[in-house]
Amino acid sequence: MKMRMDYNNMLSSRVSDGITQQELDKLSASIKKANKAMVDKRAAGKMAWRDLPYNQEGAVKEINDYVNEMKDEIDAFVVLGIGGSALGPMAVQQALNHPWWNELPREKRNGFPKLYVLDNVDPERLVYFFQTVDPTRCLYNVISKSGSTSETMSQFMIIQQMLEEKVGKEAARRKIVCTTDAVSGNLITIAKAEGYKYFIIPSAVGGRFSELTPVGLLPAAFCGIDIKGLLVGAAAMDEACKEEDIYKNPAHMYALLHYIGMTKGKNISVMMPYADSLKFISDWYAQLWAESLGKQFDNDGKTVNVGQTPVKTLGVTDQHSQVQLYAEGPFDKIIVFLGVDEYRETITIPKTYADMPSLGFLGGVTHNKLIKTEQDATEYAITKSGRMNMTLTLPKVTASTLGQLLYFFEVATAYAGELLNIDAFDQPGVEEGKNATYAMFGRPGYEEKKAELDAAPAKDDKYII
Amino acid sequence: MKMRMDYNNMLSSRVSDGITQQELDKLSASIKKANKAMVDKRAAGKMAWRDLPYNQEGAVKEINDYVNEMKDEIDAFVVLGIGGSALGPMAVQQALNHPWWNELPREKRNGFPKLYVLDNVDPERLVYFFQTVDPTRCLYNVISKSGSTSETMSQFMIIQQMLEEKVGKEAARRKIVCTTDAVSGNLITIAKAEGYKYFIIPSAVGGRFSELTPVGLLPAAFCGIDIKGLLVGAAAMDEACKEEDIYKNPAHMYALLHYIGMTKGKNISVMMPYADSLKFISDWYAQLWAESLGKQFDNDGKTVNVGQTPVKTLGVTDQHSQVQLYAEGPFDKIIVFLGVDEYRETITIPKTYADMPSLGFLGGVTHNKLIKTEQDATEYAITKSGRMNMTLTLPKVTASTLGQLLYFFEVATAYAGELLNIDAFDQPGVEEGKNATYAMFGRPGYEEKKAELDAAPAKDDKYII
Repeated sequence: MKMRMDYNNMLSSRVSDGITQQELDKLSASIKKANKAMVDKRAAGKMAWRDLPYNQEGAVKEINDYVNEMKDEIDAFVVLGIGGSALGPMAVQQALNHPWWNELPREKRNGFPKLYVLDNVDPERLVYFFQTVDPTRCLYNVISKSGSTSETMSQFMIIQQMLEEKVGKEAARRKIVCTTDAVSGNLITIAKAEGYKYFIIPSAVGGRFSELTPVGLLPAAFCGIDIKGLLVGAAAMDEACKEEDIYKNPAHMYALLHYIGMTKGKNISVMMPYADSLKFISDWYAQLWAESLGKQFDNDGKTVNVGQTPVKTLGVTDQHSQVQLYAEGPFDKIIVFLGVDEYRETITIPKTYADMPSLGFLGGVTHNKLIKTEQDATEYAITKSGRMNMTLTLPKVTASTLGQLLYFFEVATAYAGELLNIDAFDQPGVEEGKNATYAMFGRPGYEEKKAELDAAPAKDDKYII
Repeated sequence: MKMRMDYNNMLSSRVSDGITQQELDKLSASIKKANKAMVDKRAAGKMAWRDLPYNQEGAVKEINDYVNEMKDEIDAFVVLGIGGSALGPMAVQQALNHPWWNELPREKRNGFPKLYVLDNVDPERLVYFFQTVDPTRCLYNVISKSGSTSETMSQFMIIQQMLEEKVGKEAARRKIVCTTDAVSGNLITIAKAEGYKYFIIPSAVGGRFSELTPVGLLPAAFCGIDIKGLLVGAAAMDEACKEEDIYKNPAHMYALLHYIGMTKGKNISVMMPYADSLKFISDWYAQLWAESLGKQFDNDGKTVNVGQTPVKTLGVTDQHSQVQLYAEGPFDKIIVFLGVDEYRETITIPKTYADMPSLGFLGGVTHNKLIKTEQDATEYAITKSGRMNMTLTLPKVTASTLGQLLYFFEVATAYAGELLNIDAFDQPGVEEGKNATYAMFGRPGYEEKKAELDAAPAKDDKYII
């Protein structure tokens, strides 16, 4: 089963505001350059995430063994992670498992534990969490490559203390598993010193490209997900994405179309899945696309302030929230519909009120047909309104098609980075906020930043209501 | 307790890209005109939602009586609604109740039932839902003003059939409650014919402005929420929003600043709560702002294609996802931080790894302090990067402050509509998609649209990969 991409509605032949064949042709030099960069960087080990479909075999075995060893001991598997360490696990779980997984009795979960992802440091969260589960019956997965992520590490310290108080240091040891860098950072040091089980994030793989490492694979496996299937799907997409001819390479074409869109004022990228199961894919994509492409400087040091803002939405739900704006507002967005051919369940509307015109036509129709028709109708309306849009379709949501989709977006993001001539793999813009946080806490070494903060002009009360 | 708004960082005195005092002053005529329109329209009954804080007393009593009568009979209260009928109830529940409400034992819910909101027609949803609860132990709240919302009404028909099969027509009657228009539409007709309990949405109140009608009040009351408190808060904000002087009127000033932002190319409105409890406020706001202001024509019939795209995000979580883009990407957004002074719980980080520089400074700090500091640091970084931002703060999240906040956004939206000279209360842009759906289903009366669809050019396979 292969994912497909339909970009007819990105083109001027179908939407008033669309891309012309000339515009596409004009970019052949950029395409060649980007193709070469993708190949060269991969060969130079600068795109280590591209090898994940092929080199995680050992990790998969170790993960599956560990799941078998541990799963009956615990009620819940708890991710302590933020950013890619949280968004990937949530997206995969939502896509492949029951939407009310944690509310099902264990046998309906095939014997697998519940899953919680605690990614924020809202103080209410941990307190309420401890009221919800028996916190001593959980396995806590601390995910941080650097081991210095304040949010994750602070949660870890709170939970470690709680566990050691409640069950003792020895038993606590078995309830914590770390996912981190093999060598550098606090977390690997701590894991070794405390004797925690740990899994490795390959050092050249960045957070938002790490879903196919133990970052994503371990939580998925604890929920009974076929993690080999994810990798097999990713490998299939990797093959498709090696195509030189951009008309045969879906990820490169996706990037190119968005790149052209950006040059034409489309600063917004809307992701609109028509399946509840794919809702959190939008969240995962939002990080990938925003953090990779939102950059101040290009590779030549020129100030460019590029980037497209991802918008998370859900069909049909957001037809009743966002489509008014999409159809009538500014010509500032590219809308990506994300559909499925076959849902996992079928339900039929009875012919109860056949005599009421606005209800009668629904009688005997399945929700499968209704949601699909509404997707087609929305695509039609958006296209008629002249707005660029395209559609990605999974034949069915499975581990393999999901692996394809995730990998597709990763390649598309990297390729868009090449077209934009920026570094898609760094995130210098988050340092300022981190440093300000350290300074506010008086962390040694941040005295200069502290002085800068202290010197900032006070707020004017006139502008506070 | 009063919500406050700090817009210092919208101004050129603090951000390179900000608004000057001159720009504000220049708009005094528009402000006067908008003020007058707000007063005139309210007097003419065209802003019926503004009276809700004062005229729902009867509804509140009836709702509370009904909750007392029914709550012990049911395990769960289930909203069948979409758009405003779903987003409001979810936002209020998330704000005021335990985040894992449905997973708590009943006594920890103070005896109140679980809450489910089923707003999509993904066929997997209802099937999976029926696997999660005992569907005969639920009270289903069908919410549709027109009674012709395909999604909601189709869910209703499926559930009505299921109930009648399982418990018989008589018992089923007690498990369905409708919220709809008093006179027009299918749902009131059905409710009366079938003998269902029903609550009324005042006919002049539109869906996205209906949270303070039984649309929002009934689900909230079934979760034990102080619905009178919501209305009291809204009434307090109504007073503040009657101020002629825009420097004293937070909602009008919010609208004005965003309006100026739009004229300066800020086509994106980011809502970033720093509290898990306020996460779904962003979803509710996204509908309100997008659907009200995203319009093709202004009041004079001129093509304007205005509107600002709302982006939902969450602090601190999305510092690890979106802030890179906000700090370094295009100058195309206004970021609204939504904070709280006091969280409902406190949790402290132990001093476990005092000797590790990146962890040591966290020892002894509360998560309350950490999240607040990160909010301040992000505000600092965003401001330093020259991006417009502002902060709304609730002293604490309570029914009353939440009522203030919801009502604040409603007034701000209406006022922004006046400044833009558009109708903030219609949604003509969703008709095309609805009509296409009807035509695709062969609904009588849509033959012409069907012919139009049939005549649309086929997709070119060349552009499908």
